[in-house]
Amino acid sequence: MAPTLEYYDEVSHDLPVKPVATKVNGVPAVAAVQLEDSGKHDLVLSYFRAYIADLCQQFNGGHPGSAMGMAAIGVALYKYVMKFSPKNGSYFNRDRFVLSNGHACLWQYLFMHLVGVEEMTTDQLKSYHSEKYDSICPGHPEIENDGVEVTTGPLGQGVANAVGLAMATKHLAATYNREGHEVVNNMTWCMIGDACLQEGVGLEAVSLASHWKLNNLCIIYDNNNITCDGTADVANSGEDMNAKMRATGFNVIDILDGHSNVSSIVHALLSARSSDKPTFINIRTVIGIGSQKAGTPATHGAALGLDDIANIKKSFGMNPEEHYVLPKEVYSFFEDVAPRGKQLENDWSSTLSSYEQKFPELAAEFKLRVAGKMPEDWTKFIPKKEDFPKEPTATRKSAGLVGNPLGENMSNFLVGTADLTPSCNVAYKKKVDFQSPELRTACGLDGNYTGRYIHYGIREHAMCAISNGLVAFNRGTFLPITSSFFMFYLYAAPAVRMGALQGLQQIHIATHDSIGTGEDGPTHQPIALAALYRAMPNVLYMRPCDSEEVAGAFEVAIKATETPSIISLSRQVLPQWEQSSRQGFAKGAYVFVEEENFDVTLISTGSEMVFAMQTRDILKSKYNITARVVSFPVPRLFEQQSREYKQSVLKPKSGKPAVVIEAYAANGWERYADAAFSMRRFGKSLPSKAAYKYFGFEPEVMAPKIEELIKEVQRDGIEVLRGDFRDLNGALGIGFEH
Amino acid sequence: MAPTLEYYDEVSHDLPVKPVATKVNGVPAVAAVQLEDSGKHDLVLSYFRAYIADLCQQFNGGHPGSAMGMAAIGVALYKYVMKFSPKNGSYFNRDRFVLSNGHACLWQYLFMHLVGVEEMTTDQLKSYHSEKYDSICPGHPEIENDGVEVTTGPLGQGVANAVGLAMATKHLAATYNREGHEVVNNMTWCMIGDACLQEGVGLEAVSLASHWKLNNLCIIYDNNNITCDGTADVANSGEDMNAKMRATGFNVIDILDGHSNVSSIVHALLSARSSDKPTFINIRTVIGIGSQKAGTPATHGAALGLDDIANIKKSFGMNPEEHYVLPKEVYSFFEDVAPRGKQLENDWSSTLSSYEQKFPELAAEFKLRVAGKMPEDWTKFIPKKEDFPKEPTATRKSAGLVGNPLGENMSNFLVGTADLTPSCNVAYKKKVDFQSPELRTACGLDGNYTGRYIHYGIREHAMCAISNGLVAFNRGTFLPITSSFFMFYLYAAPAVRMGALQGLQQIHIATHDSIGTGEDGPTHQPIALAALYRAMPNVLYMRPCDSEEVAGAFEVAIKATETPSIISLSRQVLPQWEQSSRQGFAKGAYVFVEEENFDVTLISTGSEMVFAMQTRDILKSKYNITARVVSFPVPRLFEQQSREYKQSVLKPKSGKPAVVIEAYAANGWERYADAAFSMRRFGKSLPSKAAYKYFGFEPEVMAPKIEELIKEVQRDGIEVLRGDFRDLNGALGIGFEH
Repeated sequence: MAPTLEYYDEVSHDLPVKPVATKVNGVPAVAAVQLEDSGKHDLVLSYFRAYIADLCQQFNGGHPGSAMGMAAIGVALYKYVMKFSPKNGSYFNRDRFVLSNGHACLWQYLFMHLVGVEEMTTDQLKSYHSEKYDSICPGHPEIENDGVEVTTGPLGQGVANAVGLAMATKHLAATYNREGHEVVNNMTWCMIGDACLQEGVGLEAVSLASHWKLNNLCIIYDNNNITCDGTADVANSGEDMNAKMRATGFNVIDILDGHSNVSSIVHALLSARSSDKPTFINIRTVIGIGSQKAGTPATHGAALGLDDIANIKKSFGMNPEEHYVLPKEVYSFFEDVAPRGKQLENDWSSTLSSYEQKFPELAAEFKLRVAGKMPEDWTKFIPKKEDFPKEPTATRKSAGLVGNPLGENMSNFLVGTADLTPSCNVAYKKKVDFQSPELRTACGLDGNYTGRYIHYGIREHAMCAISNGLVAFNRGTFLPITSSFFMFYLYAAPAVRMGALQGLQQIHIATHDSIGTGEDGPTHQPIALAALYRAMPNVLYMRPCDSEEVAGAFEVAIKATETPSIISLSRQVLPQWEQSSRQGFAKGAYVFVEEENFDVTLISTGSEMVFAMQTRDILKSKYNITARVVSFPVPRLFEQQSREYKQSVLKPKSGKPAVVIEAYAANGWERYADAAFSMRRFGKSLPSKAAYKYFGFEPEVMAPKIEELIKEVQRDGIEVLRGDFRDLNGALGIGFEH
Repeated sequence: MAPTLEYYDEVSHDLPVKPVATKVNGVPAVAAVQLEDSGKHDLVLSYFRAYIADLCQQFNGGHPGSAMGMAAIGVALYKYVMKFSPKNGSYFNRDRFVLSNGHACLWQYLFMHLVGVEEMTTDQLKSYHSEKYDSICPGHPEIENDGVEVTTGPLGQGVANAVGLAMATKHLAATYNREGHEVVNNMTWCMIGDACLQEGVGLEAVSLASHWKLNNLCIIYDNNNITCDGTADVANSGEDMNAKMRATGFNVIDILDGHSNVSSIVHALLSARSSDKPTFINIRTVIGIGSQKAGTPATHGAALGLDDIANIKKSFGMNPEEHYVLPKEVYSFFEDVAPRGKQLENDWSSTLSSYEQKFPELAAEFKLRVAGKMPEDWTKFIPKKEDFPKEPTATRKSAGLVGNPLGENMSNFLVGTADLTPSCNVAYKKKVDFQSPELRTACGLDGNYTGRYIHYGIREHAMCAISNGLVAFNRGTFLPITSSFFMFYLYAAPAVRMGALQGLQQIHIATHDSIGTGEDGPTHQPIALAALYRAMPNVLYMRPCDSEEVAGAFEVAIKATETPSIISLSRQVLPQWEQSSRQGFAKGAYVFVEEENFDVTLISTGSEMVFAMQTRDILKSKYNITARVVSFPVPRLFEQQSREYKQSVLKPKSGKPAVVIEAYAANGWERYADAAFSMRRFGKSLPSKAAYKYFGFEPEVMAPKIEELIKEVQRDGIEVLRGDFRDLNGALGIGFEH
């Protein structure tokens, strides 16, 4: 009887790989695939490696070792397996590739050159580590450059980004693909080094990849066993990586001769395409292969030296006197990649055309999504001021009132939480969870890939790094919402930063801000975190004081198409102010209560606004002092306003002092105020009101201190405050209180 | 033939557990240990659970569910297995216990009460969630309180702290124990919930625990399968936790009936004591057991309600009308714990006495360590100013010159790195690596537990969280040094913060600060991070400008016994200044160049000091402008100085402007300066000098801008700058530059 043969799904269609049985009578077949041109591999690998060595030598720096070691993996990916179009980096259905070990970027740049990415000239390659301002070959891959899906460098981030990219495909495919019309079906390939699965963010992300059964994700591990400090076993000897990844829920493939065996790598990569789980390919390579220092940390982060490079070339049978050599055979080896890419684009266009004819409405929305446009008029979902409740309301609740209709109706919103659904109020009516359709949870909370509500588990860092991947899939296709306690955005900070650096729009819903959080105590009460996000470029940290300002925050965040926003919210209820205004909010700061003749300006934000307003009343009634009040939710937006507007809000020339009231570290407020009621030590486990009282945030306590300041200014002139910022409460922020 | 029996090492000596064979003919025996009093378990568990429910009901909040579910684990630990002395929380050789799932703190508080910790009265228990300022029952466990080894709350941290605590034991044991004289041999127990091994920091830490073969560490997993969002499988269905921990290198024990079966838990805990690997005990429990909402998220973070509590009591056979009931039988059940603890203390004292007689020198040093005192006069190892090289030197190199003699000679220094030995210069001569003595690395870099050089791998977050555990073992016994690139202290920030919150002295060596890092590009160039650490309470972020100031930084850091320090260093070479002074450094800021008649004060720090000094020269030679210069490495120390000193440094009343030059976000400098050359966007991949130039940090570019400012002030008076801080370079920090 003839054996039953099973083949790779796609091999015969559009890849230069001959179909080979993967299973014979249901048993996995070990034979590698048959590759055309495999006789040229040695030549290509040699010239590739020598060229990398030359590029690093030029400015005597960079990371040659892993780029050289990974050469065969690159040939497998760029020549045989990856579906992309070198002439059009933004071809929508391209496979996404993430170089999580971003220091090996020369590897990617050189392959991009070889497959025919036009901008990637040899001049550009040689600009690596140069002083050229418009180099597209920076020291780590940057998203601005065609062919780079995400900026990488801080290790582990790329793994989580890749999970986000793979989720994006799953979601779009489940939402828009129809029988016979697969408008999205790309793979995500993620290259990692030894570090990416030592870093916590990578480990969080792989757990989620397996939970969601992202079988369109393949992690390719360049296992060269070398880190800066020595062999990797200097800090990693206890674990069996393959067993660990298998236990994590991955399809695991092992390759022992990954420095040279292109066909075995191709074989593994293709089997990733047909796996029912995410795949982890553990590829043994040799760092700096060819160098006399091969297999050592010396090849990792430094040029190899002229002598060594000459030896490398000799050992490869090349002329040691020649530099930057890429013979014609190397280019011709890759010359089928670009036409194949063009064909992929054409095929996709045809698919799309027939899809449009058969499913015109769906296609219309899909095309909007591809164009990165909002699928509906979102403004209609934002409540008006009069729609909000009049009674005191926690701003986290207000955020639900504003955000939930958006979540429910906007098909580009992907709303997630780090296991704080009950606290963050981001769960909208009729939400469908993003889950593998096969999942059956013990609590009955199942879902499918069309779902737009995401349970990230207790993984704040991965949540935000995955969120970056979701946006990077195609700018504007998704607007991810994340949510957690504000304090835990410190866990996520490296990912929030990467989002800001890449201009990836998303909205972080951060509740339980400030000491108002209460009983959970100092571990949960942020003090310095606002200072971080107010200083971080391209982040909008917004701290609204009531529902109306929350509406303003969402409006600002949705319009900031290249900026991540953090909306900082209270756990406790806050008054709804007659004076609050979303238009004022959008200017970053605005006059909340004006007074023609005033003695002091009180500045406040968020949950401390109530103290400013109460203090104003007491100042008037008990001290006959007139205070105007400024709501100052977003310093960064205020900085964009005209000097005239700024002066109209703060009136610095009035000769009257300004005092800020905010239960955070004051750092940064000195730009606008002369004195602060702020936090100079960590918080305390007390109920919300008691915590404020403990730290002196009481109108009765603040008012006389402000009176004293005003008297001093009246006596000595406003100049007395120059260079003498007054911390009106709190001990110094040094030392440890037992 | 009689079977060969193997017993638990210690069972018969000092625990209320009868010896039972663990192996019969080499095969693990399944029988649980025999416990005295096991007939009382149900009674104890019932009253314990009802009491927890009552405590949460009082103020209608808190976390009852896991505390109730974990009751049997607590009985096993506190009554049978853990070696500690309730009457003396600081007994040196006590087992360390970490409640990583800190929200379950009532569990710990109530067991402390039951075993006889004197301060833990029922009044104190009832102060949980109250407005009592001096409560020792805060919403999460706090290190200030006896019986709590580390403050926990942010999930995952405790796992890493526990790894640090277990390392401390291993190191002290290897260093000081002698045959027959075990002066340190305690276990570390770490309780976790579902979150702690979802969080990356926990996952990083367990890899290291297995790498170091910390068989004195036992992680106890309260596997109630419930998180805030539902059953844990809502975000964790892909992995087989036991297989994963086994692959990570742990001894894994499974307990299916952990809500009730105290003896099987005791059995497992005891076998952890004799494992050759760290142990992971996966204990199935039922959250909120007894409640009608048992096994659901509703019991996690909210009081159960009066009706439900009445039902719980009825189902336990208790009077539903009575609250806070702990009958005599419950107290008597635990009454042997305190005397046993006293006996442990006495035994240890005897051991120490005979150790002193036999090893007087070793004992003298050991006792200093126990007392938390430095074992040698450290001041003699700090180089004098004249000892430093005269040529330009990177401050990371200077840090090696200062730190390496300390590392080499101070037996309390535990020097570590997140895989950046070649970059951080913290490796001292003759270093011995902290490693399992059995480890044989491929690169030949082995070690043993007496080693004081620690390879943390690429795990910055775990590095700093482990470091917290090392200090918490016994204040002053260790002074851990961590090292990485400054940028990656953003990964570690949650742990640095926990160190600051707990007053745990350590020194973080953070090199490659600012855009001077160069080619690695914006991912590696910190912009906002200094603002975070300058705002964070109880952290000393120090940015020295040359070797002399680096010496000052180490002096400050070593004297700050309850404060973590970050010493921020340059990758690139910097001039050695005649003007620099460690005494000035210790004041936080000091006059670097004084001028009697001056037009402007230039403020700078670290690697930008060179620009301030060059700009000063150009201002003089080209513009006839006289600039004085202030070195301002540590704002927080400056804040501690007298108003007179501050005014003598900054001269705010002079009517002359002050300009700060620092390649970070300016936030916070507004307190001292009127204008800034700073960073308002992310950096760029360029060589160091070119990067500075790109962002306008060039004396030739800065000088005319300063001249303009001075002219404006001369024309309009210094008041013109009031409320109008000038950002003299850089675009606004919003938007994304393609």
